[in-house]
Amino acid sequence: MPYPWGFMSNETLGARVRFSPVILAGGSGTRFWPRSRRARAKQVLALQGERTMIQQTLERLQPVAEMSDVWVITNALLRDVIQAQLPEISVEKVLAEPCARNTAPACALAAFLLERTEPDTVLGVFPSDHVVANPARFAEVMQAAIKLAAAGENIVVLGVQPTRPETGYGYIEQGSMLAADEPIVAHRVKRFREKPDAHTAERFLAAGNFVWNGGIFVWSARTLANAVREHIPEMAGPLEAIAAAYGTSEFEAVFAKEYAECENISVDYAILERRSAKGEKRSNIFCLPADFGWNDLGSWSSLHEHLGQTPQDNVMDGETTGLFAIQSKGNYVYAPGKTVALLGVDGLVVVETPDALLITTSARSQDVSKLVRAIHESGREDLI
Amino acid sequence: MPYPWGFMSNETLGARVRFSPVILAGGSGTRFWPRSRRARAKQVLALQGERTMIQQTLERLQPVAEMSDVWVITNALLRDVIQAQLPEISVEKVLAEPCARNTAPACALAAFLLERTEPDTVLGVFPSDHVVANPARFAEVMQAAIKLAAAGENIVVLGVQPTRPETGYGYIEQGSMLAADEPIVAHRVKRFREKPDAHTAERFLAAGNFVWNGGIFVWSARTLANAVREHIPEMAGPLEAIAAAYGTSEFEAVFAKEYAECENISVDYAILERRSAKGEKRSNIFCLPADFGWNDLGSWSSLHEHLGQTPQDNVMDGETTGLFAIQSKGNYVYAPGKTVALLGVDGLVVVETPDALLITTSARSQDVSKLVRAIHESGREDLI
Repeated sequence: MPYPWGFMSNETLGARVRFSPVILAGGSGTRFWPRSRRARAKQVLALQGERTMIQQTLERLQPVAEMSDVWVITNALLRDVIQAQLPEISVEKVLAEPCARNTAPACALAAFLLERTEPDTVLGVFPSDHVVANPARFAEVMQAAIKLAAAGENIVVLGVQPTRPETGYGYIEQGSMLAADEPIVAHRVKRFREKPDAHTAERFLAAGNFVWNGGIFVWSARTLANAVREHIPEMAGPLEAIAAAYGTSEFEAVFAKEYAECENISVDYAILERRSAKGEKRSNIFCLPADFGWNDLGSWSSLHEHLGQTPQDNVMDGETTGLFAIQSKGNYVYAPGKTVALLGVDGLVVVETPDALLITTSARSQDVSKLVRAIHESGREDLI
Repeated sequence: MPYPWGFMSNETLGARVRFSPVILAGGSGTRFWPRSRRARAKQVLALQGERTMIQQTLERLQPVAEMSDVWVITNALLRDVIQAQLPEISVEKVLAEPCARNTAPACALAAFLLERTEPDTVLGVFPSDHVVANPARFAEVMQAAIKLAAAGENIVVLGVQPTRPETGYGYIEQGSMLAADEPIVAHRVKRFREKPDAHTAERFLAAGNFVWNGGIFVWSARTLANAVREHIPEMAGPLEAIAAAYGTSEFEAVFAKEYAECENISVDYAILERRSAKGEKRSNIFCLPADFGWNDLGSWSSLHEHLGQTPQDNVMDGETTGLFAIQSKGNYVYAPGKTVALLGVDGLVVVETPDALLITTSARSQDVSKLVRAIHESGREDLI
């Protein structure tokens, strides 16, 4: 099957398509507690490297987008720090959601905003808290995704080759392959699958045609706006009202009132799953490989894996002043300004901030959000 | 067998005996690293309660001694902090060893100092870093020990009823019991036994007549001085010279020169073992029960046990601001000013200071000195 842009050459297309990245940065980031807090979520932390996650997100978009075309959707607690970290982005393109409503309203709002003036603009949705080891490959894949999305009513998603039967991610079931002679192999999407149980995840892995949903979606503003009208029609009215008020003195008030009306639902559930139910051919959803060293750094242990050469390595983070380890391996310790001494301990995660000390294990670090919930329920909002 | 003071009544004896405690406070205290450092050894830390170990040591001697009769033998690094912590002790009775020489020279020096003016003074040697849960009972036992030591050439040691086959302590093999109608049951000492291997420790425990050497020794100045002349004669000359210079302008210089000549050896090895080799009857060493809740707090895990109600308890030390624990038990955490969050961890020891973070387990915490050695060998003297 040929690529759906048919006769268009890359160059022609490249010159014609306007691409507008929408960076989603409203996450509350409890998984990296105690470093991450409500007002200092994961995306504004430099968990890996010197620049923050959102700064790195923007940086790798530079080869494929004009900075003046980038939107950021965040929340009121994070807006200031994000504006400070991303001075390239114009202030009016950093929107703070008046309330948390998951990804569907955020993506849809961007579509309605752009549809008013430039419905052909291709819009890419990007999480702000993932890492990419190979930014050059990222740019290549994005260019292909943009072309594919620009060629009609296509929706492009990015799939990560799974390396383990992970139950924490959604999966994409891939169908038939597109033109194998293209530099980037695309598949039609058969179905989106929610986070599976362990048994199902094993089955997905064995089947071979399942990939992790990388959380990156590309489509034209018109395609997305129409998909909203079709699959979540009750959301269209409020979002059109917000888009109409954008740039006026009414905007904040309209945004606050109408956004609250929107359903709290992810774009995966609200649009992609419903669309994929139409069948592989009619849904026109395509999956490109996120083969650029994608990592969502979902927990302290995944950061540990990302930073260590091997799982046996002790990783000292936060500019520790030294490490002494005796019969200890596979530990992750964040202890800025301290010398760390390990004696007979394996697989621990220890994270220290000025007001808190977390001690857990690699295996349990994905449950840190449970701790955060317990802290919240105890009324210790100073720690949240 | 009657008590060896024969016809003397307690009251008569109590009125006549002068008692001079000698607090040994020269230990380097590596086992409580990173809280303990060379210049902030265990004995000057408040590991348990609000007062430091050495302050508590002095406090429990108050019922049995005049404060003006107390001596402290420490080192140059600790002298200032000890003088500040013990303002009751006159400055000239806080001696700083010019070099570390273990307990034999320190005890012997005290004996020679006192022998010059008051050879009948009973001298008690006390570690400065142990805890005593029942100070009233401690005072009772000490009164009996003082009487026993005052009645001739007797040496009195204190034995702790063992609760486990500990290989980290010396043992005392007890012989025949003295007058069972006395309020405090004393035994003649058969032999001193060095720290045993695990198998031997099991045997000692099973035998029933072995107790741990509690490190407290009581004897008259004359008895100890004569024991030095008999068992470590080469040490007598230097120490007599130091004693003779005490109170003169030559003291510091003589102390530095002569003390360095003394053998680096413990009083247990140098005197008590050798004396006990003379046989139970001729050695005149008596053991009284240290049944006053003795604990030497030998490691972080023993402090944990001491502070916790049960071994399953999580003990938060250092005025933490809160604890959140999920599926975690038996952890000891010292994290001043922080809230501690535990998730799925058991039996850990975590100790934080402004410059260092120790992470180990209860089981391994007695090996903290190995870490300290590694740190020393790496040249990081700032952490020692």
